[in-house]
Amino acid sequence: MLSVGVVGGTGYTGVELLRLLVLHPDVSLKMVTSRSANGSAVVDMFPNLRGFTDMVFTLPDSHALAQCDVVFFATPNGTAMKMAPDLLAQGVRVIDLAADFRLRDATVWEKWYGIEHACKELLAEAVYGLPELNRELIANARLVANPGCYPTAVTLGFLPLIEQGLLDDQHLIADAKSGVSGAGRGASVATLQAESAENFKPYAVDGHRHLPEIQQTLSTLACHQVSLTFVPHLLPMIRGIEASLYASLKTTVDLQNLYEQRYADEYFVDILPAGTMPETRTVKGANSCRIAVFRPQGGDTVVVSSVIDNLVKGAAGQAVQNMNIMFNLPESQGLNQVALLP
Amino acid sequence: MLSVGVVGGTGYTGVELLRLLVLHPDVSLKMVTSRSANGSAVVDMFPNLRGFTDMVFTLPDSHALAQCDVVFFATPNGTAMKMAPDLLAQGVRVIDLAADFRLRDATVWEKWYGIEHACKELLAEAVYGLPELNRELIANARLVANPGCYPTAVTLGFLPLIEQGLLDDQHLIADAKSGVSGAGRGASVATLQAESAENFKPYAVDGHRHLPEIQQTLSTLACHQVSLTFVPHLLPMIRGIEASLYASLKTTVDLQNLYEQRYADEYFVDILPAGTMPETRTVKGANSCRIAVFRPQGGDTVVVSSVIDNLVKGAAGQAVQNMNIMFNLPESQGLNQVALLP
Amino acid sequence: MLSVGVVGGTGYTGVELLRLLVLHPDVSLKMVTSRSANGSAVVDMFPNLRGFTDMVFTLPDSHALAQCDVVFFATPNGTAMKMAPDLLAQGVRVIDLAADFRLRDATVWEKWYGIEHACKELLAEAVYGLPELNRELIANARLVANPGCYPTAVTLGFLPLIEQGLLDDQHLIADAKSGVSGAGRGASVATLQAESAENFKPYAVDGHRHLPEIQQTLSTLACHQVSLTFVPHLLPMIRGIEASLYASLKTTVDLQNLYEQRYADEYFVDILPAGTMPETRTVKGANSCRIAVFRPQGGDTVVVSSVIDNLVKGAAGQAVQNMNIMFNLPESQGLNQVALLP
Amino acid sequence: MLSVGVVGGTGYTGVELLRLLVLHPDVSLKMVTSRSANGSAVVDMFPNLRGFTDMVFTLPDSHALAQCDVVFFATPNGTAMKMAPDLLAQGVRVIDLAADFRLRDATVWEKWYGIEHACKELLAEAVYGLPELNRELIANARLVANPGCYPTAVTLGFLPLIEQGLLDDQHLIADAKSGVSGAGRGASVATLQAESAENFKPYAVDGHRHLPEIQQTLSTLACHQVSLTFVPHLLPMIRGIEASLYASLKTTVDLQNLYEQRYADEYFVDILPAGTMPETRTVKGANSCRIAVFRPQGGDTVVVSSVIDNLVKGAAGQAVQNMNIMFNLPESQGLNQVALLP
Repeated sequence: MLSVGVVGGTGYTGVELLRLLVLHPDVSLKMVTSRSANGSAVVDMFPNLRGFTDMVFTLPDSHALAQCDVVFFATPNGTAMKMAPDLLAQGVRVIDLAADFRLRDATVWEKWYGIEHACKELLAEAVYGLPELNRELIANARLVANPGCYPTAVTLGFLPLIEQGLLDDQHLIADAKSGVSGAGRGASVATLQAESAENFKPYAVDGHRHLPEIQQTLSTLACHQVSLTFVPHLLPMIRGIEASLYASLKTTVDLQNLYEQRYADEYFVDILPAGTMPETRTVKGANSCRIAVFRPQGGDTVVVSSVIDNLVKGAAGQAVQNMNIMFNLPESQGLNQVALLP
Repeated sequence: MLSVGVVGGTGYTGVELLRLLVLHPDVSLKMVTSRSANGSAVVDMFPNLRGFTDMVFTLPDSHALAQCDVVFFATPNGTAMKMAPDLLAQGVRVIDLAADFRLRDATVWEKWYGIEHACKELLAEAVYGLPELNRELIANARLVANPGCYPTAVTLGFLPLIEQGLLDDQHLIADAKSGVSGAGRGASVATLQAESAENFKPYAVDGHRHLPEIQQTLSTLACHQVSLTFVPHLLPMIRGIEASLYASLKTTVDLQNLYEQRYADEYFVDILPAGTMPETRTVKGANSCRIAVFRPQGGDTVVVSSVIDNLVKGAAGQAVQNMNIMFNLPESQGLNQVALLP
Repeated sequence: MLSVGVVGGTGYTGVELLRLLVLHPDVSLKMVTSRSANGSAVVDMFPNLRGFTDMVFTLPDSHALAQCDVVFFATPNGTAMKMAPDLLAQGVRVIDLAADFRLRDATVWEKWYGIEHACKELLAEAVYGLPELNRELIANARLVANPGCYPTAVTLGFLPLIEQGLLDDQHLIADAKSGVSGAGRGASVATLQAESAENFKPYAVDGHRHLPEIQQTLSTLACHQVSLTFVPHLLPMIRGIEASLYASLKTTVDLQNLYEQRYADEYFVDILPAGTMPETRTVKGANSCRIAVFRPQGGDTVVVSSVIDNLVKGAAGQAVQNMNIMFNLPESQGLNQVALLP
Repeated sequence: MLSVGVVGGTGYTGVELLRLLVLHPDVSLKMVTSRSANGSAVVDMFPNLRGFTDMVFTLPDSHALAQCDVVFFATPNGTAMKMAPDLLAQGVRVIDLAADFRLRDATVWEKWYGIEHACKELLAEAVYGLPELNRELIANARLVANPGCYPTAVTLGFLPLIEQGLLDDQHLIADAKSGVSGAGRGASVATLQAESAENFKPYAVDGHRHLPEIQQTLSTLACHQVSLTFVPHLLPMIRGIEASLYASLKTTVDLQNLYEQRYADEYFVDILPAGTMPETRTVKGANSCRIAVFRPQGGDTVVVSSVIDNLVKGAAGQAVQNMNIMFNLPESQGLNQVALLP
C-alpha cells in the first residue's frame, strides 16, 4: 500500500483526485490539506464522498507529508514549487497537478505566469507526465509535472503527425473548447451558471498559458520550433474538452493507420473507427482520450478531433496514471471506470 | 461467476446496467438483446463502453437466455410479462426493470398501463425489489419487480413515518422532479434539448403510473389505504430525482433520530446531518439515496427531501443490488462507486 | 416622456430593467448608478445593450436623481431605505425592487433581514406593488415595494382561492423552484455552473425571507393569519420560477371558472385551458404569469402550478408595469414582448 | 400594411418568425400553414404566443397564399422550390428560409441535397439574402434565398478580408459551433437533452451542406475559387452560433480598422472593440452579428470570431430584415430588440 498525501484538496482537481484515490486498491490516503478548510470534514465540502472517507482537512505540514510515499499537489500555481524541494529531500515523490514544473525554461515560465519561479533548479529534473510520451522517464521520476488539460488533448492529437514530420508545423491551429470545471472552483462572476450557461465564447485569444506548454512539447518532438495558434473557448457544460486541430499535410499518408499504430499499446488512448465523431460524453469521468482523424474533401488539410475529461485524463486521472507508473503498479489500477453516459 | 443476460439493452437503463455489469467482479455477461439493433456492436451505440465489451446485440432468444442464471429486462412495459414465464420455468431468475410486475392487482395495472396483463398468475409471486423493505423476500425470489424511479425516492422518504403511523396519511403530498433521462432514449419532441433545457414544468398532474405503485407500498406499510397527491416535474438536466414530501404530523417525534435509526444498517440510504440539504449531484452515478427531514418553523408539517440518481438507485443500480441479494453476494458488490461531482 | 433613474444597475434585475427601459417609448433614461462600476460604460458590462445606450455608470447622487420623475432601486436589500426618504421629499416617486418596503411590520422585517430598518416611518405608506391586487393604490403611490419573485408566483397562484375563503389555510404548501439568476450576479461558489448545473436541491427549508412576505399578503386577503410551508429549490437553468401549490379544499368549486373569472381583465395573468401544463419557457423574457389549476383524482387536494420569469414578472417587468400604472400609461407599454421559445 | 403568409410554421424558424411578425408594426399576418398541424391553434403548439395571435394552422393553399404580398417558407428543404413558381407568377414575393435557392449551380445543389431540383430556372434569378452583401439586389428581388445560419456567421466574418484579397484563400478554416435549435424541432435521438446536453462533438467533418454555400459566396467575392475547411460542432445549449475563423494573412493590414470601416453603416453587424471577446448570449434573441478580429502573437495567422443567434440573424430575423428591404421599410423595423441577458 502506498501512503499518499494530497495538498490542496478543495478544488475540482482535488475532489476528483479523492474520488479516484479512495477506491484505489493500492492507496492508503494519509492526509488531505487545505489552509482555508482546515479542521472541517472532507465530506462536508464534498458530500459525494460520504461513506468513503472520514478524513478532515489539515494544514499542509511538511513533516507530516514526509511520511508519504507520494504527494499530489492540487494547488494553485506557485504552491508546489515552494514545498516540493523539501519533500523531495526527504525522499517523497511529488506529482504536481499545477503548472509549476511544466516548462523547462524559467524565463518563459515567469513571462507567462507573472511571478518569479521559486525553484528553478528542479525544472530540468522534472518529468513532463504525459505517459504516452514519457513513460520510461516517469517511472523513475522523483518529480512529475502533470500536463495541463488542453495540452493533453492537443498534444495527443498532434503527436503522431508531428513525430513523423508530416505537417507544415509553422501554421498549426488548435481550436479547443473546455467545460467550466476547467475554470476551477473559485467564486467568480464569469463562470456563474447565469453567465456561462447558454453561452459560448472564445477567450485568451491573444495568448493562453497552455500555449507555451504545447509548443514546448511539439517543438521537442519536431526537433525545431513549431508555431501554433491556440484558441480556447468556454463550453456551457461541466466536464469535457474537445480540441479540433488543423494543419496542412506535407505529404500523403494513411492517417487512420498512422494513429492506430502509434497508440496501439496505449490503454488510455482510443483511436475511433474511421468516420466516427468523438464526443466528450464518451469520456465523462473516465481516464480516456478518444481521437478521430479526417482529411475533408480529400484536400491537404488534416483535421484531428481529440476529446478528454478535463478533470480525469486532463488532470486527476492522469496524475493517478503517473503514480501507477512511478510505483510500478498496473497502469490502469484504480482507473478502470466506464464513462457516465448519459 | 453468474451468467447474466440483458434483454433490451438500447435504452438508458440498459446502458447503465451494462456500465455496472461489465465491471462487476462476479458477473459474466452472456448476451445483450435488442430487436432494433440486432447485429450491431454494443459500443457503436454506446461508445463509453469501448474497451470494456466486444458484445454484439442479438435477438432475444428464450433458448439462449435460458443458459443464464439471471436475466434483466430493461425493456418497455409489456415485454417482460411475455417472456418471464418461460425463463422462470427453465430455472432462470428474472429482474424486471419495467413495470410489469410492480402492482399486485391486475385490474389496477391494466387501468394504468392500458393493456391486458399477459401473466397475471405471477403477480402474487413477484417480489417488489426495494431492498430496504423486502430484503428477505428478494433473497429468495425467482422474479423481482424492480421499483420505479419516483417510487424509490418517495417510498424511502415516507417509509419511517408511515411505518410508525405518525402521519395524517390521507393528505400525503409528493412533489417530485426528475431529470430527462427518466423519459427514456426514444426520439421525442418533448425531450429535445431545445424543448426541455432552460425549462421546467409539471406533468401528469391528473395521474402518473407511479402513483398506484407508491400508494400500494405505503398502504401496505400503513395497513390501510393511504391517499397521496403525486406531482412529477421535468428537470432541465440529465440525471437525478428529488422528491419533496409534505405531510401533517399527528404527534411529536424526534425526526432526525427516527430516520437515522430506521436506515442505520442500510448501506445505500444516507440520512444527512440535521440542516443539510440533499443535492442530486451528490448521488450522480451512485447507487445511493440521500434523505433529509425537516419541520419548518416548528409547525406540524414535516418536509422530507429525498434524492437519487434515477438511472442507478432508481433503476439499474437497484437492479444490481437486487441481483447481489438474490445470489448471496455482498450487497454493494460492483456498486461501490463515488458520485461524479462536479 | 418620463425622466427615469436606476440606482444599482449592475445586477440581473438591473440589466433586465435596462433592457426594458431603453426601448420603452415613454421613458427617457437619465442615469444608471453603480458605486463599483462608476465611470465605466454600461455596454462594457452588458454587451447585449450595445447600440441601445451610451450611458456610463455614475455614483448615486441624490441631487442628480432628484431631477427624475421616478427612480428604480435595483440594489441589494438595505440601500433603498436609506435613499428613498430624501428622494420622496423632493417629489421623486420610488420603486424599490429590493425588499426594504415589502413588510409592513418593522419587527418582522428586522428579524428576517437581520439589520435595523432605517426608515420605518415609510412602511405604512409603501404600497405592495402587485398590480393584480393593489392597482388603485399603486396608481397613487409615491413609494412602491416591488414584490419578490417567489411571492409573485405563489401569491397569484393562491389568490383566487384565498380571497374566497375556500381553503384550509392553516396547511398551505408552496413547493417553489427558481432558476439561478434569482441568486443574483454576485460571485459565489454555490451558483457556479459547475456546482448548480446538472443539480437540483431544496434550500432554506427552515425559513426563507419570502415566507413572511407571502404570509403577509395571504393573511391580509384571508382576514386572519394563514400558515404556509414554503420550500424553495434551485433549478439548473437561468430564468424561470415554477411554484406548485397544494392545499385542501373546504368545499367544492369550479376551479377553472374561478381562476378565469378572477383574472379575466388581467393582461399579464394567463389562466391556461383545463389540463394544460404551465412551462417556464413560455414566459421567458415576458412579463407574464401563467397558471393552471387541478384537482387530481377528484380528491379534496387542489394543485396550482404558476410560472413566471423571475427577472420579468418577478422583478423588472413588474416594476415597469408599476411605473406604467403610477404614471397613467397603458399598463403594457414597453412590456409587449413574446417569450423567447425555444 | 403588408399581407404576410408563413408556409410551414411548426419548426423553430417558424415560431421565431411568428414571434417577430406578430409584433411587426407593418405586418398583417394572414395565414400560417402546416400539413401536420392543420386545424389546431398556433398557441396550442407555441404557448409563448398566447395573447398575440388567435391564428389556426391551415393547409398550404396556393390560392389563399396568392393574396399575400410576401410569403415566407419555413419548410424543410425541397418544399419552396415546388410552390414558389406559382406564387411568383401571381405576383407574390417569396423569401425561402430553407436551402432551395441558395446555390446557383443546380448540379452542385443536387449533389449536396440528394434530390432533383424542381425549379432550376429560378436559381439564376434568386437573390442570396445577405443584406450586408446584396442589399440593392434584395430590394428588387421577387425571390430571396435566405442564407443558412452557419454561412451567415462565417461569411460576415471572412468578408472584409476576402473582399480585399488579403488572405491565402486556399487554406481557409472555419471551426463553427451551433446550439441544438439548429438541428430543428423534429423528434430525434441525437438531440434529446439526455444525449446532447453535457456533451460536445464535431459532426459532418467530411462535408456539410453549408460548405458549398459559403464557398460560393466567398469565391464570388474573391473572383476565383477559394478552398475552405468547414467543421461544424454541436453545442450543449439552445441558441447561438460561434464561428472561429483562421487564415494566413498575405500582407500586413490594420484589421480592426478594416472591419470597422467595412461594417460602419451596417445596423446589424457590430465590430467589437479590440480585445473584446464575442459571446453568443449577447445576441440571444437579437438580429445581430458581433465580430472580433485578432492576430495572436503578432504572427501571420488571423483569427476572427463571429457570433449570431442561429434562429434570428441566422434565420427568421434575417428573413424579416430582407422583407423590410424588399418593401422599402426601415431595415430594423420589428427587429429592434435587446438580446436576453442573462
